[in-house]
Amino acid sequence: MKKYKGFEPKWVKEAAPRDSYRSIFRWGDPDFVKYPKESLYKMMKEKFKMTDDDFRQYAGDIGMDPVKLDAPCNLSGEHLKAFEEIVGKEHMTTEDYPRLAVAYGKTGYDAARLRQRKIDCLPDVVLYPGETKEVEEIVAYCTKHQIPLYVYGGGSSVTRGVEPVKGGVSLDMRPRFNKVISFSEEDQTITVQSGMSGPALEEALNEAPSRFGAKRAYTCGHFPQSFEYSSVGGWVVTRGAGQNSTYYGCITDIVLTQKYATPVGTVRTNRYSREATGPDLNQIMMGSEGAFGVLTEVTLKVFRYMPENRKRFSFIFKNWKVARAAAREMMQCEAGYASVFRLSDPEETNLMLRLYNVDETPLWKLLDVRGYQDMKRCLFLGFTDGEKGYSKNVARNIKRIAWKYGGMSLTSYVTKSWEKGRFNDPYLRDTLLDFGIMTDTLECTVRWSNMAKVHKEVRRVCHALPNTIVTTHMSHCYPQGANLYFIFITRMSDAEEFKKYHATILDAIQKSGASMSHHHGIGKMFAPWLEGQVGRTEYGVFRALKDYFDPDYNMNPGGTLGLDIDEKEKRFLKD
Amino acid sequence: MKKYKGFEPKWVKEAAPRDSYRSIFRWGDPDFVKYPKESLYKMMKEKFKMTDDDFRQYAGDIGMDPVKLDAPCNLSGEHLKAFEEIVGKEHMTTEDYPRLAVAYGKTGYDAARLRQRKIDCLPDVVLYPGETKEVEEIVAYCTKHQIPLYVYGGGSSVTRGVEPVKGGVSLDMRPRFNKVISFSEEDQTITVQSGMSGPALEEALNEAPSRFGAKRAYTCGHFPQSFEYSSVGGWVVTRGAGQNSTYYGCITDIVLTQKYATPVGTVRTNRYSREATGPDLNQIMMGSEGAFGVLTEVTLKVFRYMPENRKRFSFIFKNWKVARAAAREMMQCEAGYASVFRLSDPEETNLMLRLYNVDETPLWKLLDVRGYQDMKRCLFLGFTDGEKGYSKNVARNIKRIAWKYGGMSLTSYVTKSWEKGRFNDPYLRDTLLDFGIMTDTLECTVRWSNMAKVHKEVRRVCHALPNTIVTTHMSHCYPQGANLYFIFITRMSDAEEFKKYHATILDAIQKSGASMSHHHGIGKMFAPWLEGQVGRTEYGVFRALKDYFDPDYNMNPGGTLGLDIDEKEKRFLKD
Repeated sequence: MKKYKGFEPKWVKEAAPRDSYRSIFRWGDPDFVKYPKESLYKMMKEKFKMTDDDFRQYAGDIGMDPVKLDAPCNLSGEHLKAFEEIVGKEHMTTEDYPRLAVAYGKTGYDAARLRQRKIDCLPDVVLYPGETKEVEEIVAYCTKHQIPLYVYGGGSSVTRGVEPVKGGVSLDMRPRFNKVISFSEEDQTITVQSGMSGPALEEALNEAPSRFGAKRAYTCGHFPQSFEYSSVGGWVVTRGAGQNSTYYGCITDIVLTQKYATPVGTVRTNRYSREATGPDLNQIMMGSEGAFGVLTEVTLKVFRYMPENRKRFSFIFKNWKVARAAAREMMQCEAGYASVFRLSDPEETNLMLRLYNVDETPLWKLLDVRGYQDMKRCLFLGFTDGEKGYSKNVARNIKRIAWKYGGMSLTSYVTKSWEKGRFNDPYLRDTLLDFGIMTDTLECTVRWSNMAKVHKEVRRVCHALPNTIVTTHMSHCYPQGANLYFIFITRMSDAEEFKKYHATILDAIQKSGASMSHHHGIGKMFAPWLEGQVGRTEYGVFRALKDYFDPDYNMNPGGTLGLDIDEKEKRFLKD
Repeated sequence: MKKYKGFEPKWVKEAAPRDSYRSIFRWGDPDFVKYPKESLYKMMKEKFKMTDDDFRQYAGDIGMDPVKLDAPCNLSGEHLKAFEEIVGKEHMTTEDYPRLAVAYGKTGYDAARLRQRKIDCLPDVVLYPGETKEVEEIVAYCTKHQIPLYVYGGGSSVTRGVEPVKGGVSLDMRPRFNKVISFSEEDQTITVQSGMSGPALEEALNEAPSRFGAKRAYTCGHFPQSFEYSSVGGWVVTRGAGQNSTYYGCITDIVLTQKYATPVGTVRTNRYSREATGPDLNQIMMGSEGAFGVLTEVTLKVFRYMPENRKRFSFIFKNWKVARAAAREMMQCEAGYASVFRLSDPEETNLMLRLYNVDETPLWKLLDVRGYQDMKRCLFLGFTDGEKGYSKNVARNIKRIAWKYGGMSLTSYVTKSWEKGRFNDPYLRDTLLDFGIMTDTLECTVRWSNMAKVHKEVRRVCHALPNTIVTTHMSHCYPQGANLYFIFITRMSDAEEFKKYHATILDAIQKSGASMSHHHGIGKMFAPWLEGQVGRTEYGVFRALKDYFDPDYNMNPGGTLGLDIDEKEKRFLKD
């Protein structure tokens, strides 16, 4: 990172102390720091009407002190004894830090609450199960004794999915529930415990020859931005999507089989690529977000690891309309799909070209001269995967279509810059939040035919909010449409203020006619909107499933999917 | 068709009279007849220990006489009046013929029963709705008055899916519920009424430029063998698959949105390519087979119609093991997928090469000479679709891999022969059944790793049955496995005997560990096996859904998905 020429804010560059609040709310690797370069800092000051003085001290608590709550454990000794018998004394805790460490996810609301020391939820005990049988016994015990049960996988939920709002038990799956159960090269599948992290899974597959005696290396094909701190179980129960989903599919395409511990017993979903044996149990359990039981084991399809076939591309289009048309043609031409396929709108293009330092090169001006004007131009980038000929054919067609729509090829430089930042851009959030600048995201799915309307209407609402930068891209694309992903940046520190702000944008998304989530899921934060989104009769299906699996509502209770919230909390915006 | 040199059986070549029993049980176009050539006739005589004398007279009733049942309509005049108000007097009937015409599907059991005049089910009235509102009113009325409600789409069910076993109402969707509702070239979608037939849909899409002012022609990509007499609604509610599914996907991949009239009201499923908004309603309703309500409208993804890019291929492999390995490599190499991708086992290869007259060419002998021995060799054929470069790349990789596994390229002649027969091979069934030779099919899904075992065990059981030819192919393939499709031919006329025979093979499929249906569905015939297949706790989900949608069990009642059959009728074969 280049040194600042002028005033440089006191960016927090030291690692958060272990056991500190900061170590809980801050995203990612404690030893990695990301902060904006000088020109971006200047831009933000201008945008948010701030001065250097606003960056001389932190906007609030930065959480460097150790967690100390003195929160009592409200579970009886008898219950604790029972859990001890299941998982073993050394695999459970009622201490403050590990309880708080699994109580929050990673939305701006979570970060703001923790910075403000608003500790509004906490499990009574954290258990670290190691085997499926233990989880099954815990679920049975909690069901019998009406103890709320929560699961913490990777902790990257942005929907308040993991919050133990009713106390009780939280299963922290990270330390022990993270093993490979089996690998089949013949079927190209891997079966893992649900707490396995993304990087651990990918490493196991990349190393398949040495680990499993496989003939070649494999990849999981699933790389969400939260990859480093996400778990297979979290991907599955929330219906997640990776940044390479346009080729590899979303997790709902990648899962072959799931096993759950539910209050009514063990549930094993379909085991084959396709079946015509009634409703699809795989697709019923995915999206249950812990409300039907605990996901224990998952069999995933795996893909051949062939990075040598990858073809990078990036193009700039003159405006959003022509760029959308080009993207649609690429997705509908049946030439195969790119792996990363990402189109930014003008406001995001402006920000990205700065992030990738293009503003410091002659290209920035050249683009203007050639008619690709700042705040109109759109950046499109990505790369292909798959067998060599397939990959080449996809790249060739993308190029052909980009040219047809007046796109100008940039080098692979921009794509490579994006790749470098793909997992660590979220680190910027906490560095900025130290000075009261909040960054968060909302996303939805649209069809090509309502994409322009949704984009326009959501942005209109965002821009009507004070001091807001909102950037948009599509990054998971289909022949019939794509997601739209909104990143909003604003000056804000207060948790409740943020919650209202967030709700305003979510209202706008729902009003615009888009689907309210492409891959973030619902959790407890989006739950009030869900029934309005899917419809009353349709929502009744979710309740019927909940009543079947968990009639006493002990699984992830307190709002998940809106199943146990008050009717008047719900928001109905559709006609 | 070449003339027989020796004795030729009295194949029924005249069209079945309108209003005859034969016109109901016989498959397909009344004016099209298919019968075996002389060498096949000879082979069958030998296999089934029959002589020409067995072919001098029909083995039973061939159903040329008009339907006459004098079956009373058991619905009150009040109910009939109510239906008249909904659909109009001219769009309903209580006459014998149209009632029987919607009472049976197309399994061997259906044909045998009708030939034996075992009329064990009949609706009291047939309604011909024209609009969604009418269907919604009928469902509401039947729910209110506890009247059983059935739906007849294309009539090609092989699972007793359409049988109105409890009488009541049958909706015949063919004549009026068959319209295009909307077409979007931008989204590449078409919305149709559920009674639209396959050919009508395909024609509309092929003619998109003149019909909808589209820029190009489209295809539905879904061509089951029953294509000519199948309906979109039937495809969807049974989770069907077309012969081109390896490229285009099964119907569960092609559906974007569904609308149902259910006892609890109108249900509209998800409307986007992917969503993370709880369990997937599309995948809950597909597979409901009429038990949750009546499918009224479907939005399907459509594909570009580009037959000019099609590349045909066919290869012969030395044996089943090496052929399977080649097919697996083709499906796992990530070079894209062929559209038709079909591999026959040795017994089927023998039959197919005869069907396509290869036995009359020097090739038959040449193959033996070159080490591709009869009853060991396996025929693999298919073609590609998609954009030109994509299609070419798939074909190129198939060729490369076929060679690697010792495959010998045949010309496109065999593939073209298969294409000619792809929709009319089923016509053979009735011609043979006139002489007491029964043909039917069963199918399942396997993973690559259990394919050999399933194939072996099911064939072992089939061959232990008297006088049985059983041929097997895979025709819907995935990186993780494929379907196995068994065609069995035996000497049999009696319906009950057939039912037992069929059950024995289904038992064998379930015991072998395969999934009991890849795309035929469950209906009432396979229902006793379903709970054993999916598991008790898992099956409870289907019941919970049924209880939600249709608490009084009026929708396709009498066994569909096993929801209202006696516990002791169920077959549990798994541990």
